[in-house]
Amino acid sequence: MSILKNKVKNIKEEIGEKNALLIYNPKNLYYLCGIEGFGAVGLLTPEKWTLFLNENDYELAADKNPANEVHLEIYKKGIVKDTIKELVKKGRISEIFVDNIYGEALRNLENATGRRIEISDVVERARMLKTDDEIENIKKACEIARRGIELAREIYLSEKRISEHNLAAELEYFMKKCGSEGTFEEGILLACEKNAAHIHAKPSDKIIKGAMLVDLGAKFNNYFSDFSRTFTERASNEVKKHAEFIENLELIIIDKIYAGMKIPEISKFAGKEIEKNNFKLFHSLGHGVGLDVHELPIINNDSKEEFTENMVFTIEPGIYKANKFGIRSEDTCLIKNGKAEIL
Amino acid sequence: MSILKNKVKNIKEEIGEKNALLIYNPKNLYYLCGIEGFGAVGLLTPEKWTLFLNENDYELAADKNPANEVHLEIYKKGIVKDTIKELVKKGRISEIFVDNIYGEALRNLENATGRRIEISDVVERARMLKTDDEIENIKKACEIARRGIELAREIYLSEKRISEHNLAAELEYFMKKCGSEGTFEEGILLACEKNAAHIHAKPSDKIIKGAMLVDLGAKFNNYFSDFSRTFTERASNEVKKHAEFIENLELIIIDKIYAGMKIPEISKFAGKEIEKNNFKLFHSLGHGVGLDVHELPIINNDSKEEFTENMVFTIEPGIYKANKFGIRSEDTCLIKNGKAEIL
Repeated sequence: MSILKNKVKNIKEEIGEKNALLIYNPKNLYYLCGIEGFGAVGLLTPEKWTLFLNENDYELAADKNPANEVHLEIYKKGIVKDTIKELVKKGRISEIFVDNIYGEALRNLENATGRRIEISDVVERARMLKTDDEIENIKKACEIARRGIELAREIYLSEKRISEHNLAAELEYFMKKCGSEGTFEEGILLACEKNAAHIHAKPSDKIIKGAMLVDLGAKFNNYFSDFSRTFTERASNEVKKHAEFIENLELIIIDKIYAGMKIPEISKFAGKEIEKNNFKLFHSLGHGVGLDVHELPIINNDSKEEFTENMVFTIEPGIYKANKFGIRSEDTCLIKNGKAEIL
Repeated sequence: MSILKNKVKNIKEEIGEKNALLIYNPKNLYYLCGIEGFGAVGLLTPEKWTLFLNENDYELAADKNPANEVHLEIYKKGIVKDTIKELVKKGRISEIFVDNIYGEALRNLENATGRRIEISDVVERARMLKTDDEIENIKKACEIARRGIELAREIYLSEKRISEHNLAAELEYFMKKCGSEGTFEEGILLACEKNAAHIHAKPSDKIIKGAMLVDLGAKFNNYFSDFSRTFTERASNEVKKHAEFIENLELIIIDKIYAGMKIPEISKFAGKEIEKNNFKLFHSLGHGVGLDVHELPIINNDSKEEFTENMVFTIEPGIYKANKFGIRSEDTCLIKNGKAEIL
């Protein structure tokens, strides 16, 4: 059975016999059929797996003939609603699920079909555990990101007069030339001194000096990587000491993680260690990485998940002091042979 | 009255006395208070305009003291629900609106407050008409994008051996060095020959030859621009002829637009002209541009809007032939003194 067919089979089992799943999230569609249709809709029923595409995408997808994986149809206004109504009428499906669409779209869909529609994260949850192919893509994205981090360090250490914005531009350009398809939606996060105290700092025109935080990722074959480093060679001893604490803590955390561990266990541990140092963990300790830079699982105290073989995620403890500094250390990790390893 | 206060006043009038509006969309929040809070929530009531921020953003925003524009509070789990319940109980608000959040969040909010919550695009609609400041930012973003287009043409004409991916990387890098904060989420769209037949083509490793379509934008002070050109100097006469048709059509369309014109009128005109040439307009004729690259109004046959003074939008007719070519010509336009002008 092909990898795609196997993924679809697993999702079918999850949603249950006689139920249907509507998929609007482009990443979920790509995960299940390898086609990125703009404004496409997938409909998975016990009998059929259909992708409704706009005419332009249909022409091009049909040409590639992936029809053995998914049945392609041209999207027409009302086609999803009509197909569902027909299936319900014939008694082929009972419950209808949908991935997380906007509230207005959900209400329109319920009005059009006259049915209650349940929201399901079944595909997002399936995406948490990666296949070998997915891991290979993420590894390539990690390799490129590491080269970006190395260049960032080189330029930082050279003490060249360069702004946060221009250094970020250099790194994005360099990673693209290394084969990256892109980086985060908001671009690389790069900030020095007090600018880094903002968790989501955007590169400014400030000339690099003091400590510098860089948070970047690459994209390879649609899969992301995500890394952060804080360089402190040009910073005060106090900041250096804090950075050392965070870097060590990250490694201790990764070392503690094992397949079967409940996620809040590690998140609480990290929070306590940071509090011992009179700081607070403002953000989640990490997140899944794959077709999205941020995907499931969310690594925080509220998570219901546990670390599982083939799960890919970041670990990124950080501390921030308003108007002073921000320090974060982050790696993309994989659970393999029961333990977490850095990719 | 400050520009921000004026914007808030207009929104209040739109939602009506005794009603409240919850705002989750970061662009809508930025529009109304100039603060980009990660995971922030705004609550606009007849009495108060409050922004709930995470602790990290609160520390930093409070320091800038924009408290005269908006009341800042630290976000805590349940605070939005509790605030709303309290206001309803005291009879201060009757109806509650929210901007377009995900279906699951909407249901959670309704369950938590025990109230029906209506979705409203009141802020997105207000954003359609730009202030002078917003227009200045978009103009700067247009200037940078035009320089990007010029460089694309230069490299295309030089017949230098370069891939779509690497040329896109050069253009993104160049525009960043010109002061652009970033480009589209998916990066620049750049494709030649048959690759351009895909409306949302991504740059590939194919070496540039034949006709080349480039669709790019810059970002300045959070505001976008959006342009497309199809270069045909290295293409067949047939493709040249089609490109000429589309370029002329774009100018004819822009010339026809006037303040007060119903949007479907121009969209239908464009569709008919394209059909006369035995093609089909696969996508909308254009869209609003501002804090988002794609925002209201959508310029298509279903639009309920009309062109209005200070509206900023793209006009982008395009034709596509599977496995052959794609041609699109796009400019960012503004309605000024009753007429559309290219920015």
